[in-house]
Amino acid sequence: MAKNFTSRDEDYSQWYNELVIKADLAEHSAVRGCMVIKPYGYAIWEKIQAQLDKMFKETGHVNAYFPLFVPKSLFEAEEKNAEGFAKECAVVTHYRLKTDPNDKTKLIVDPEAKLEEELIVRPTSEAIIWKTYKGWIQSYRDLPILCNQWANVVRWEMRTRLFLRTTEFLWQEGHTAHATKNEAITETKQMLDVYADFAENFMAMPVLKGVKTESERFAGAINTYCIEALMQDGKALQAGTSHFLGQNFAKAFDVKYATKEGKQEYVWATSWGVSTRLIGGLIMTHSDDDGLVLPPNLAPIQVVIVPIYKGEEQLAQISEQVTVIKAELEAKGISVKYDDRDTYKPGFKFAEYEFKGVPVRLAIGPRDMENGTIEVARRDTKEKEILQQKDIASKIEHLLENIQNNLLQKAIDFRESNTHKADTWDEFKKIIKNKAGFVIAHWDGTKETEERIKKETKATIRCIPLNNPLEEGKCIFSGNPSTQRVVFAKSY
Amino acid sequence: MAKNFTSRDEDYSQWYNELVIKADLAEHSAVRGCMVIKPYGYAIWEKIQAQLDKMFKETGHVNAYFPLFVPKSLFEAEEKNAEGFAKECAVVTHYRLKTDPNDKTKLIVDPEAKLEEELIVRPTSEAIIWKTYKGWIQSYRDLPILCNQWANVVRWEMRTRLFLRTTEFLWQEGHTAHATKNEAITETKQMLDVYADFAENFMAMPVLKGVKTESERFAGAINTYCIEALMQDGKALQAGTSHFLGQNFAKAFDVKYATKEGKQEYVWATSWGVSTRLIGGLIMTHSDDDGLVLPPNLAPIQVVIVPIYKGEEQLAQISEQVTVIKAELEAKGISVKYDDRDTYKPGFKFAEYEFKGVPVRLAIGPRDMENGTIEVARRDTKEKEILQQKDIASKIEHLLENIQNNLLQKAIDFRESNTHKADTWDEFKKIIKNKAGFVIAHWDGTKETEERIKKETKATIRCIPLNNPLEEGKCIFSGNPSTQRVVFAKSY
Repeated sequence: MAKNFTSRDEDYSQWYNELVIKADLAEHSAVRGCMVIKPYGYAIWEKIQAQLDKMFKETGHVNAYFPLFVPKSLFEAEEKNAEGFAKECAVVTHYRLKTDPNDKTKLIVDPEAKLEEELIVRPTSEAIIWKTYKGWIQSYRDLPILCNQWANVVRWEMRTRLFLRTTEFLWQEGHTAHATKNEAITETKQMLDVYADFAENFMAMPVLKGVKTESERFAGAINTYCIEALMQDGKALQAGTSHFLGQNFAKAFDVKYATKEGKQEYVWATSWGVSTRLIGGLIMTHSDDDGLVLPPNLAPIQVVIVPIYKGEEQLAQISEQVTVIKAELEAKGISVKYDDRDTYKPGFKFAEYEFKGVPVRLAIGPRDMENGTIEVARRDTKEKEILQQKDIASKIEHLLENIQNNLLQKAIDFRESNTHKADTWDEFKKIIKNKAGFVIAHWDGTKETEERIKKETKATIRCIPLNNPLEEGKCIFSGNPSTQRVVFAKSY
Repeated sequence: MAKNFTSRDEDYSQWYNELVIKADLAEHSAVRGCMVIKPYGYAIWEKIQAQLDKMFKETGHVNAYFPLFVPKSLFEAEEKNAEGFAKECAVVTHYRLKTDPNDKTKLIVDPEAKLEEELIVRPTSEAIIWKTYKGWIQSYRDLPILCNQWANVVRWEMRTRLFLRTTEFLWQEGHTAHATKNEAITETKQMLDVYADFAENFMAMPVLKGVKTESERFAGAINTYCIEALMQDGKALQAGTSHFLGQNFAKAFDVKYATKEGKQEYVWATSWGVSTRLIGGLIMTHSDDDGLVLPPNLAPIQVVIVPIYKGEEQLAQISEQVTVIKAELEAKGISVKYDDRDTYKPGFKFAEYEFKGVPVRLAIGPRDMENGTIEVARRDTKEKEILQQKDIASKIEHLLENIQNNLLQKAIDFRESNTHKADTWDEFKKIIKNKAGFVIAHWDGTKETEERIKKETKATIRCIPLNNPLEEGKCIFSGNPSTQRVVFAKSY
């Protein structure tokens, strides 16, 4: 499988594009900028969904579903949100096609079926949801509202890349309503913690938690919290955001509640989301020149078993033994695939599962049958060893934990060795140009400086880390006084 | 809660509409014909999804995701499908809004952002999926493809009703590709069986399995299999369909495979789907004049526990005991809610959970604390009894099974007593007009007769049952010879 596969050093971007296609994760569709998520890629999304959904429910959230379309007038209601998203949206203007009178095999838009008001395919759902919440909220008893939705959204992107940036993508969007500012801020931070916990403990992807600068903020938010990960090419990936929306949407949609004391107050809001983009981050954090590497906690297949045999009789004997081993592994909640296809040779299968990032491969042949052994290969380090079959399920269980931890540690090490302090503008430019990675530097706090730095180096402020230590210094660009360092990087 | 609630006898349609709103299942949105599925309604959908998804995977299917949009030219490719769906679809014509130069607070469609080719919001995904499958299928080794997708679809319906018929709805659509006709037909029937199994054993909704007549067939199918349920007002509900598509889509999108012998053959196809409409069927099958009745297998809350107390001390004692009972129930996989809100009285809570169809309500007060008892009320029959707390979890587990079975049996009995044979046109008209229900009658097999009957009585042929016994007779309408009876009803 790894033939004709570009290495990371050769061309990281090309490596990524080829990997997504060749590992059967996703492909481009007939619709500009929209992807088809193939079964193997979608199985990873299902694992992500299941775990996040569990974490959302454990923190008191429920799921609901709101309409795909947002009437234009609702979209206009929150000014900044409208401004931020109006430039990239799919607009439904008609509700019928009809047969082309000039060519009966063709369809044309029926001009008589023009909508009075255009509908926007949701790029995000604050507008339609806050319009709905208005009807749900009368008094403090109705608060908080803690809803999440799993949905598709559409943003008309000009340059798209599978998983990382597509016109349509799948995501979850939480939308909560609170009686007080503090409660809303606590919720915003809680969900950031949930995302960071998920990224580190399931994706094995370390993340920085921080706050966005004004210019990188979500359109309509007071504050945008984010988790930022570092990819192997030294570029940052914004992996999730949690927004404190203040009373912006409550004011735009006139959502007030009666306090215990009977006063009318505007409601406080948050929204937070992660998307199929996470799969892009997962790929770029761990994979190598031999293909995909998946952390066991999100691998659709955790263990694959390949029989090495000659003739049906040998296969039957091996299969009998594999049935036992498979059952033992499954009893421990490990997902196992036994690949006994006779249309492919073991070598082909080995290459296939290596490329698809299956964390552990077991192989069992006639000699193993004699000796009561089994060959165990791990995808992350490529190490192989022959183990006794006795207690194999416990051994594999530990190995999977080991792989999960190893991938996280490796990613943490990578991030550490690719995080640099810069104290001068020359130093900054040099690091960004050569090593890339996260650059920790003083910034004077102005939009103008941020913009100039971006223009000259393509690096942006990824975030101001939470609990950032205060430190007197001078802005690397303007030389003006600064009280803290912020995190710069080039980014996806 | 049941105050100001229309009874079924008064106005069945009104009863349904009020029930959906008052039980917090769904509501109309700001977008014409689109609904908001509220958390309680969505929780039912999640239970439906989880169970169906399990059944799909057990029968070898995998999930994937295909684009929301279908380019117009793909839509045109399968003629009948295009004809069937073109009349009711949302059409995206532009990809940008801009600020209205005459009013800076307003947005207008940017005329410069007109798409070269319009995009249709998928009403169903055969076209985009078969366009994709063309790239996936070269030889017999690539078959079968057994994909399902959970998605939203849009059909521009003129008359909408919550869950039953909405412009946007959620569904799953399976799309499979096979090497042979027989294999595809077997798949079509298998999925019909999965649907029937689910309807009967989870929804407690008995269904007739059958085949649609030509005029009721899915646009683009060779044969449409369906499950048909009978609602309490004597109208039928098509609850799920499974289509044998023959080679229609393979031919439209030129999808061929190389056989083992090296010949090129068109691929055989099926598609099958159920939607949020099932929730409408669930409601109308079981609910009564006191609100929703849910079968335990799909109830988001299976057991609610309400404390009866005076003062905090009593509440603390009761809560301690409830914690034990709740844990015992949960250990058996039963979902339990303990409602200790002090903002509402027990009577209010009783009414609320009754209206929301929670299958079992437990109440525990000071006297129960003394006697080691607990009050158990079942929603379906409204029976109450005082039980010893000892072994309460096993007792409740059996009660839930009992309720599930009772609901199914009740629905079967209802269907039996509302299924009638008609042998003459007068008899037929009378039954349809008075008792409604399923009417089993001879039909001459022609489209014309079917249409005339529909026009005169509003009854349609719901299906020709599978394994229908052959029986010589005369068409109730034309008097022409017929070989079998078919099932007529008015329908949703």
